[in-house]
Amino acid sequence: MIISTTGFQFISIIIAVCAFAVAAWLYKWVNAQPSSNARIAEVGTLIRRGANTFLKQEYAVLAKFAVIVAVVILLFLPKPIWNNNVLENVTMAISYLAGTVFSAISGKIGIQIATIANVKAAEAAKEGIKPSFMVGFRGGAVMGMAVVGSSLLGVAAVLMITGNTTALLGFSFGASSLALFAKAGGGIFTKTADISADLVGKVELGIPEDDPRNPAVIADNVGDNVGDVAGMGADLFDSNVASIAAALIMGASLDGGVSGKNTAVVFCYAAIGLLASIIGVATAKIGKNGNPTRALNSSTYVTTAIFGILTAAATALFGFEWRIWGASAVGLLVGVIIGIASDYFTDDSKRPVHYVANASKSGPAFTILSGISYGLISTLPAMVGIAASALIAYKLCAPIGEGYAMFGISMSAVGMLSIVGMIISNDAYGPIVDNARGLAEMGNLGDEVLETTDQLDSAGNTVKAITKGFAIGAAGLTVIALLGAFMSEVNAAAIELGLPTINGFDVMDPVVFFGMLIGAAIPAVFSAMLILGVDRNAQRMVTEIHRQFKEIVGLKEGKEGVVPEYDKCIQIATTGAIKELIPAGLTAIISTLVVGFVGGVHAIGGFLTGNIVSGLIFALFMSNAGGLWDNAKKYIESGHEGGKGSEAHKSAVVGDTVGDPFKDTAGPSINTQITVVSLVASLMSTLFLTMSLFG
Amino acid sequence: MIISTTGFQFISIIIAVCAFAVAAWLYKWVNAQPSSNARIAEVGTLIRRGANTFLKQEYAVLAKFAVIVAVVILLFLPKPIWNNNVLENVTMAISYLAGTVFSAISGKIGIQIATIANVKAAEAAKEGIKPSFMVGFRGGAVMGMAVVGSSLLGVAAVLMITGNTTALLGFSFGASSLALFAKAGGGIFTKTADISADLVGKVELGIPEDDPRNPAVIADNVGDNVGDVAGMGADLFDSNVASIAAALIMGASLDGGVSGKNTAVVFCYAAIGLLASIIGVATAKIGKNGNPTRALNSSTYVTTAIFGILTAAATALFGFEWRIWGASAVGLLVGVIIGIASDYFTDDSKRPVHYVANASKSGPAFTILSGISYGLISTLPAMVGIAASALIAYKLCAPIGEGYAMFGISMSAVGMLSIVGMIISNDAYGPIVDNARGLAEMGNLGDEVLETTDQLDSAGNTVKAITKGFAIGAAGLTVIALLGAFMSEVNAAAIELGLPTINGFDVMDPVVFFGMLIGAAIPAVFSAMLILGVDRNAQRMVTEIHRQFKEIVGLKEGKEGVVPEYDKCIQIATTGAIKELIPAGLTAIISTLVVGFVGGVHAIGGFLTGNIVSGLIFALFMSNAGGLWDNAKKYIESGHEGGKGSEAHKSAVVGDTVGDPFKDTAGPSINTQITVVSLVASLMSTLFLTMSLFG
Repeated sequence: MIISTTGFQFISIIIAVCAFAVAAWLYKWVNAQPSSNARIAEVGTLIRRGANTFLKQEYAVLAKFAVIVAVVILLFLPKPIWNNNVLENVTMAISYLAGTVFSAISGKIGIQIATIANVKAAEAAKEGIKPSFMVGFRGGAVMGMAVVGSSLLGVAAVLMITGNTTALLGFSFGASSLALFAKAGGGIFTKTADISADLVGKVELGIPEDDPRNPAVIADNVGDNVGDVAGMGADLFDSNVASIAAALIMGASLDGGVSGKNTAVVFCYAAIGLLASIIGVATAKIGKNGNPTRALNSSTYVTTAIFGILTAAATALFGFEWRIWGASAVGLLVGVIIGIASDYFTDDSKRPVHYVANASKSGPAFTILSGISYGLISTLPAMVGIAASALIAYKLCAPIGEGYAMFGISMSAVGMLSIVGMIISNDAYGPIVDNARGLAEMGNLGDEVLETTDQLDSAGNTVKAITKGFAIGAAGLTVIALLGAFMSEVNAAAIELGLPTINGFDVMDPVVFFGMLIGAAIPAVFSAMLILGVDRNAQRMVTEIHRQFKEIVGLKEGKEGVVPEYDKCIQIATTGAIKELIPAGLTAIISTLVVGFVGGVHAIGGFLTGNIVSGLIFALFMSNAGGLWDNAKKYIESGHEGGKGSEAHKSAVVGDTVGDPFKDTAGPSINTQITVVSLVASLMSTLFLTMSLFG
Repeated sequence: MIISTTGFQFISIIIAVCAFAVAAWLYKWVNAQPSSNARIAEVGTLIRRGANTFLKQEYAVLAKFAVIVAVVILLFLPKPIWNNNVLENVTMAISYLAGTVFSAISGKIGIQIATIANVKAAEAAKEGIKPSFMVGFRGGAVMGMAVVGSSLLGVAAVLMITGNTTALLGFSFGASSLALFAKAGGGIFTKTADISADLVGKVELGIPEDDPRNPAVIADNVGDNVGDVAGMGADLFDSNVASIAAALIMGASLDGGVSGKNTAVVFCYAAIGLLASIIGVATAKIGKNGNPTRALNSSTYVTTAIFGILTAAATALFGFEWRIWGASAVGLLVGVIIGIASDYFTDDSKRPVHYVANASKSGPAFTILSGISYGLISTLPAMVGIAASALIAYKLCAPIGEGYAMFGISMSAVGMLSIVGMIISNDAYGPIVDNARGLAEMGNLGDEVLETTDQLDSAGNTVKAITKGFAIGAAGLTVIALLGAFMSEVNAAAIELGLPTINGFDVMDPVVFFGMLIGAAIPAVFSAMLILGVDRNAQRMVTEIHRQFKEIVGLKEGKEGVVPEYDKCIQIATTGAIKELIPAGLTAIISTLVVGFVGGVHAIGGFLTGNIVSGLIFALFMSNAGGLWDNAKKYIESGHEGGKGSEAHKSAVVGDTVGDPFKDTAGPSINTQITVVSLVASLMSTLFLTMSLFG
């Protein structure tokens, strides 16, 4: 049976629309759940308003940024506009803006549902695990469906309208720009609020966590939403779009156009991935007193199995290459394996957490040293996994013909990201039930309810480690594919300009090596700037909290009717986050431009390679070390190594504070940094090819 | 004027012999200085004996290791012995053993003089800065002359006797094996002793540093010698040999033999570098109340200038290529710049140290976060420096002809390492005057003497940062050159076997990428294993210290005549260091073999590239962050941010403890790990070429 690429694009769009329909249904279902507690509703409203404040301001800055970039694109990309290039440049600029808008909308939807679902999940917890789990999961699934639906819809629509794979780079770059703001900005916001609330509240004044007297308490809860829901969603939107775009660019270059079987297979598999996620979400269930971790994991496995079976059927039916199917299956399999390996290093029933908890008895220096060590070791299995899946995909697909090896790798990335709808659903579940736990406490729902929400929250933490490993692995394969896309772009430009094409980037070429060494330093500098940004921003907020406690009469004593100015803290976190993020983002982008204009396309090939390699290491290291410290602290709090208040606990708190910006700000933002830099390079390929000092 | 390569080899040997003569003269001079204080002599003897215990045991284990490796080499390298290859393999095995022996001897000389000079410098401090400085500096210079003299002698002799550049790889691998033991083993030893002496002495019992009741106090002083003198010397011996060997291999491949002008220029420049260092050492002086930092730096600048002038004269006289001279000059210049940049991040009059000291007021988590951030940022200037010198050397030398670009990079490394004799002299000065300070305190020489030794010690710390940056930069260029040497080896083997030669390692080749991702993870895992090794070994020693305080009657109270069993602690540090180091070293070597036999020479090319790139980043990060924390603590102790005993000081102590294994164990050992892996790859090139799964 033969269906044209256009046919598969239509099918993709239809399935994307189905995803929106499912999201809408789930949204309604969550919204229809009962809520009666006034206190919870009040706090819930504050959180929602705070999250919207952040989004609004972030989007306002982003809009200015996007307009400037769009103008630059209009003038220069893919080629200077004065080379009779008006239509192409307009297309690119609009695609770019579409990328930002699509991602922004799904982020907004995510925040919207998460700040409703948290309240509903808290109330549902009164009825037991099952109803509360379903609210949390379905709330997360709204985000999952919205993100994947809009990314697939966007890619299909852009390609359909423009008929031009280069425009996809614009769309993808738009998604990346937004992800940079959402992930890094949200990451700075959430850790600013978290650290300063703790520093003044718990450490200085000795008032409990989530105490409403603390002016930063709402900002802290808002942070969970903007960092873990909106930020994570934008990150995976970005990876998903980038992986599909890279595969389409290489597929089109193999087919010699956008309507051959290699672009068809990309849409087919991506659409099936979304369909599998829809089925997985729809069929997810939990027994009356079931285990929420098992429920989350089993729906992931169901989705994986459905994807494998349906893509095999499609491959047989439509006569796709089995080797390409193999590549995508390997990608998905390796993604699951990387997730399991990440889990080992952060799970509180495994050796690393026990070792760090035990070392904490000798003081905080040993918490740090052992955590850093295990974090560094944790990079190996994931790196081997990514390396092996790239190699296997290559070996599988190389026999199909010239150029298929790299295409195979991009399909491996598509395979790994195929179940991203399910991954996001599981991941967004976490902050929802985390928030629900806080609301249950503030609403005085009683110990039994807290026990229920604790169980749900703990399941969220466990699957979070797996999904994070998965996200980094997928980003790794995607950026390898983007490197391929970069070379395709360069060669397309070279042919058009009558310049010699390039075969690759040889590390023995010192221009490549030059780029590689600099590219490798960028993730280190970028993450350091974000961490310092959190530090500086937290100092500002601490000053504001001190001011409020000093100036607002009766606040410290908890006098009836006296409320802190929550908004001021949210404001500081918001403006500070944006202010601190911009230099870091610009450093990454400007260094790409400098290297490109100094060393040309070969230097950029090296730059991207170095950036990917060191970026993956730092992302894995920081995410896993952060998760490890977090769980080591919780492990001690649950009564081990002396329990709460012991010396070991004090040390573990230091580890956890160090780990916070590692795992929630810097680590996950590196993914986005890599993608942004790769896309800038691809977009600028013609300019780097024609204008460089040594190139 | 034309001199043959053999002529330059003779000149090199003569200058090396001169260096030995200078070393012998300096040794005698230091030894002839007066010493009269019985207490100092006694403690000095304990330190010397302890250092010799470590060396003896380390060398005993190394001897076994070396014999095993030599047998493996004899059987398999460069080609299996059954292929009519007896003579070549015997040569290689003997060269390997010679590399270990030459390096071991210079390490032994270094320990010998350092443990004499410390005593003499302490006593000389009674007479003022000038005599004490001269003892410290000349003691260090003995090490400098011995290391560089024996490395140049060894390389020249091996090439003269064998007439075979591949044998140089064997010699270089021998030097690397020893460096791995000396640097990583010494690093584990010194930090084990340091941390456990502090934990029990300062923290638990509240007795001062260097208190003779502490059973670990002698081990702690021994550690300075085995880590900073012997370890650092072996590391730079290794880098120096590797840089000369890599340049000779590429030079010989350009000349088509070992007697052309490109091998001549290597020997000529290396010999002039040593000569310049001899002159620099001989003319080093300080005014009666002069500034020791300025004295150390000015002799470095003198040496640099002499090298530049003499090599220019030689280039004119012997008709070498000016472009090659330019490459070596650029290398040297960039080395100095990298050193200055490292200094910025660790100097206590600069912003990073002030920032970390200030952040420490908010608690140890902020000490760690800010230190890690600045450590990460500090990687950028050095990476750019290495990248730029490689690129400039390439652009300078490429016009000479095919293959000269890579040769230019190797000459840039030779240039950067040319003044290594001076660098080692300055670096070994540090632990000598550090020890002298301790001895002056234990010998009750009075406050005025302590002030003098403090000044000398502080100069040692300042130049240490510069020399460390220099050493890492040099290692970076060297390993790039080794990558070139690896390709030369592969192609030589390919031609002999009638296989196609390779042009490079293309990162778009997924086999290369596969190797690269795994290679990049190795320095992370290697350094983590060393840090965990220090942690475990310190636990063992703490147990032993507790035992002694419990079982030896009167020890805690300081009863007259009661001495702890110092030897037991030295024993634990020694055996533990060797035990913990072996798995880390084997991990690096075995992963090289696995990747090579799985992916073949292309995967190894990628593996080495990833290893170099991530290794440089981690080495720079760990060394600089460690130095930064150390100086932030000292800065606070000198009365800033609340001074000694304040909250900021407590936090800074945590930072310093984390930084200790960073800067003295893991960071500097990564250099050696990279070299070892590069040499293993080059040695195994024929086997990887002919026997691999995917290659």
